[in-house]
Amino acid sequence: DLVAALLDGPTETATAGPLAGRTVLITSGPTREALDPVRYLTNHSSGKMGHALAEAARDAGARVVLVSGPSRLSAPAGVEAVAVESARDMHREVMARVGEMDLFIGAAAVADYRPEQSAGRKIKKSDSDTALRLVPNPDILREVAALGEGRPFTVGFAAETDDLARHARDKLDRKRLDMIAANWVGADRGFHADDNALEVYWPGDGHASLARADKPALARQLIQLIAEHYHARSRGTENP
Amino acid sequence: DLVAALLDGPTETATAGPLAGRTVLITSGPTREALDPVRYLTNHSSGKMGHALAEAARDAGARVVLVSGPSRLSAPAGVEAVAVESARDMHREVMARVGEMDLFIGAAAVADYRPEQSAGRKIKKSDSDTALRLVPNPDILREVAALGEGRPFTVGFAAETDDLARHARDKLDRKRLDMIAANWVGADRGFHADDNALEVYWPGDGHASLARADKPALARQLIQLIAEHYHARSRGTENP
Repeated sequence: DLVAALLDGPTETATAGPLAGRTVLITSGPTREALDPVRYLTNHSSGKMGHALAEAARDAGARVVLVSGPSRLSAPAGVEAVAVESARDMHREVMARVGEMDLFIGAAAVADYRPEQSAGRKIKKSDSDTALRLVPNPDILREVAALGEGRPFTVGFAAETDDLARHARDKLDRKRLDMIAANWVGADRGFHADDNALEVYWPGDGHASLARADKPALARQLIQLIAEHYHARSRGTENP
Repeated sequence: DLVAALLDGPTETATAGPLAGRTVLITSGPTREALDPVRYLTNHSSGKMGHALAEAARDAGARVVLVSGPSRLSAPAGVEAVAVESARDMHREVMARVGEMDLFIGAAAVADYRPEQSAGRKIKKSDSDTALRLVPNPDILREVAALGEGRPFTVGFAAETDDLARHARDKLDRKRLDMIAANWVGADRGFHADDNALEVYWPGDGHASLARADKPALARQLIQLIAEHYHARSRGTENP
């Protein structure tokens, strides 16, 4: 808000920040996959990291579009917010906009699967075991990274409960991302916490550790790192 | 809060209300059924109705225990709050306390099913369709109503998308409840709305319609109706 902004002192302006004149699309929050009008599948994402990244990118001078699943957080000031529910909603809203973007940061915890059928009316309980048929959702991150010539600089996230480095590097390679930021989840780490730590990987065995900090501070560090690598790629150099 | 309470004027006291000296256990909110540390099944319950019933029962003079699944709402003042996550958590906390209760109101939207297995670590995505094996959760309402001699006066809720009267009466009979309050859900009705309407049924073809009102007002009317029928049952008369 304005008073807080004034009290915080001047922030970098759109003409001065490391992402000045650039456009950034960020996804945030969980998605909800309906079984029927009452029940849904979701996950513990709070949207705190995605929203903090939107603020940090804005403060770095970028024009920011934030596509967010259901979150208690309101959209940061000065950011174009698009609210969605399901992974398919998020996919549609991202693909409609990502062609004009310089950077894409997929910070949402998109549901990998959705129920094969979503009933229009409430499913009645029966006493027996049952099975819920699930089908894979569109892989937004992979699709954006596969856009080819002129695709945005593409950053993914990985939330892992085990074997973090291996899972994150595997996702980086498999989806052909420019960078991935990985964090531990479970046992009060990650989603609902106000602070976090990140292990960041990029192609060619690149690696940086961002030490435990509150999410806004961590987001500013990550945006700085992303901006350096984005400009290095734009200059055609391998190492910034 | 205190100021609001003072502005509202005096409420009925514990010695004067229709539930003075009685104990009421109320469940509220959704439950969350974990697939793994990240993903879960849940529903759209906001907890607004359950929390409003807890306030209304407190204002009617009762000692109130509120067992609530995850909700944005904080527990009302003067109410004993027990926070739970899953249906099995709720079942355990209810059954541990319900023996000493005069009334039980099951306003929670308890998940009917949970995943058969909850993985200790995050399940990795595969590209193929999959099936989630589900098993029925304990039926808290049915178990409370089946406690036999000295069981609490037991009130259930039904949230329906179709054929409301038939589904509600069927649930009343099948679970041997003393009363059921039914409402429509879907299309912006019910869960997240601040107002609602209720159709209330009891054995012997009893029926009352509580017209659309904000949830606190509706909760006060329902507690009044519950209190009348509770005292009628205590006196051994069929019709209050």
